[in-house]
Amino acid sequence: MTYCVGIAVDEGLVFVSDSRTNAGVDNVSTYSKMRRYGVPGERQFVICTAGNLATTQGVIAQIERDMRDNAEVNLMTVSSVAEAASYVGALNLAQQKKNTGGGPVFEASLLLGGEVAGAPRRLFRIYAEGNYIETSNQTPFLQVGESKYGKPILDRVLSVNTPLERAALCGLVSMDATMRSNLTVGPPIEVGIYNSGSLAPCRYVSYDEDSEFLRELKSNWNQQIKEAFDRLPPMVWNEGDKS
Amino acid sequence: MTYCVGIAVDEGLVFVSDSRTNAGVDNVSTYSKMRRYGVPGERQFVICTAGNLATTQGVIAQIERDMRDNAEVNLMTVSSVAEAASYVGALNLAQQKKNTGGGPVFEASLLLGGEVAGAPRRLFRIYAEGNYIETSNQTPFLQVGESKYGKPILDRVLSVNTPLERAALCGLVSMDATMRSNLTVGPPIEVGIYNSGSLAPCRYVSYDEDSEFLRELKSNWNQQIKEAFDRLPPMVWNEGDKS
Repeated sequence: MTYCVGIAVDEGLVFVSDSRTNAGVDNVSTYSKMRRYGVPGERQFVICTAGNLATTQGVIAQIERDMRDNAEVNLMTVSSVAEAASYVGALNLAQQKKNTGGGPVFEASLLLGGEVAGAPRRLFRIYAEGNYIETSNQTPFLQVGESKYGKPILDRVLSVNTPLERAALCGLVSMDATMRSNLTVGPPIEVGIYNSGSLAPCRYVSYDEDSEFLRELKSNWNQQIKEAFDRLPPMVWNEGDKS
Repeated sequence: MTYCVGIAVDEGLVFVSDSRTNAGVDNVSTYSKMRRYGVPGERQFVICTAGNLATTQGVIAQIERDMRDNAEVNLMTVSSVAEAASYVGALNLAQQKKNTGGGPVFEASLLLGGEVAGAPRRLFRIYAEGNYIETSNQTPFLQVGESKYGKPILDRVLSVNTPLERAALCGLVSMDATMRSNLTVGPPIEVGIYNSGSLAPCRYVSYDEDSEFLRELKSNWNQQIKEAFDRLPPMVWNEGDKS
C-alpha cells in the first residue's frame, strides 16, 4: 500500500509520501515514491506515485527516458504544469494498457505538482484513466493510496492560508494517522516543500524508521489528541429521542 | 453507506450507529440500524447492521419472527452471546444466499453485543460469511461500514479501562469524523449503553439532525483538534537524508 498527500497553499506546495510497497503481506519492500525534476529559474516538478509498482516504475522510467532523449513532449518542454499532467496521464494509461490483455489492470495514480515560469504553482491528481483533477481554494489537498485514515486532520486544519511549513507538518500528522492504522504504509517518509514563485528545487528531507523527529511527532500528537479528548464535556442525555 | 461502532470496556458495552442509507447518491433514506432485545434480569442484546438494506431488514425480520414464533433457536433461548452470534451469522448468510443466483451478492455485516445471565458481557462482529470475531483486551472495539475515517481516534483513546460514558463519547467523536468525510453517513445518531452485569435494557438516546449536543460536540472537537495541532512543535530539518 501507499499513502501520498499533496497540499497547495498560497505560499507553495507540500508533498509527503511513504516508502513501503507490498505484494502480499510477506513481500514488503522499500521504494521512494517521490521524484523531483526541474531547471532552476525555469521549471520545477514533483511527482508522487501510488498503485501498482511495475506501472509506476514504468511511468517514471518513460518520463526520464523522454527527457534524456529530448522527446518532443517531455517535462522539460511542456509549457505548463497542466500540460505536464496531461502528458503523464497519457503515459500512465499507456503503461497500464501495455500490460493487460483482458486480464487484470495494473492501476496507478499520481500526484503532480510544480511551477513553470510565468504561471502560478499548480497541483494535480492523475487517475488511472489518465485524466486529472486540480486543487482549489476550497480543496487545498489531494491524496493517493490509502487516503481515509489521514483525511480528517487535513479537512480540519488546512486552508490555502496555512503557512507552508505548518501544511507540511499537517501532512506528516496525516501520515502518522495512516501508519498507525495501516501497517503497509511506512517509513522512510519523504517531504518536499516548494516555495511559490521560487522556481528553485524544493526543500527535501527523508525521515527513516529511526527518526527521532517522527517518533516525537507520533507520541506528541497522540498525547495531544488524548488531552483534547479529555477536555470534551460529557455526553448530554436530556435531549433527543429515548424510546 | 453506514457507520456503526461497538465498544466493550470493563464497565459495559457501547453502540453508536448512524441512520443514513443510500442506493445511489440521490436515493437517500433514514433507517435506524440499532435493535435492542432482552428480558430484564435474564438477557440483553443489541444489534447494529451495515451493508445491503434488504439483507439487514431480512435478517432483523427473521430474528423477530423466530422470537414471536418461539422457534427452537432464537434470541430468547440461546444460552450465550456467542450462540446468538452463531445464530445471527447463519441467518445473515441464509438471507444473502436467498437473493443471489450467481449474480451480485447483497452482503451485510452486523455487530452483536450483550449479556446472558451467568456470563460476562460480550461483543461480536458478524461477517457476511456468517462467521464472527470478538473484542479483546487489546482490541476493545469493532466497526462495521465506513470504518476508516473514524478509526484513528478509537485507536488512540480507547482501552478496556475507559469509563463507559467516555467510551460512548469517543464513539461519537469517531462518528463525527466519519460524517465529516462521508456524506452518506448521517443522523439521527443512536447511542446505546449497556452496564456490565446489570442485565437491564441499555440506556438509549437518538440525536437527530438538529441536536444541539451533536452540533456542539462537532464544533468543540474541531476546535480542540486545531488547537492541539497549533501546539505541535515545528518540523525538524536537521535530521534525515536531504539528497
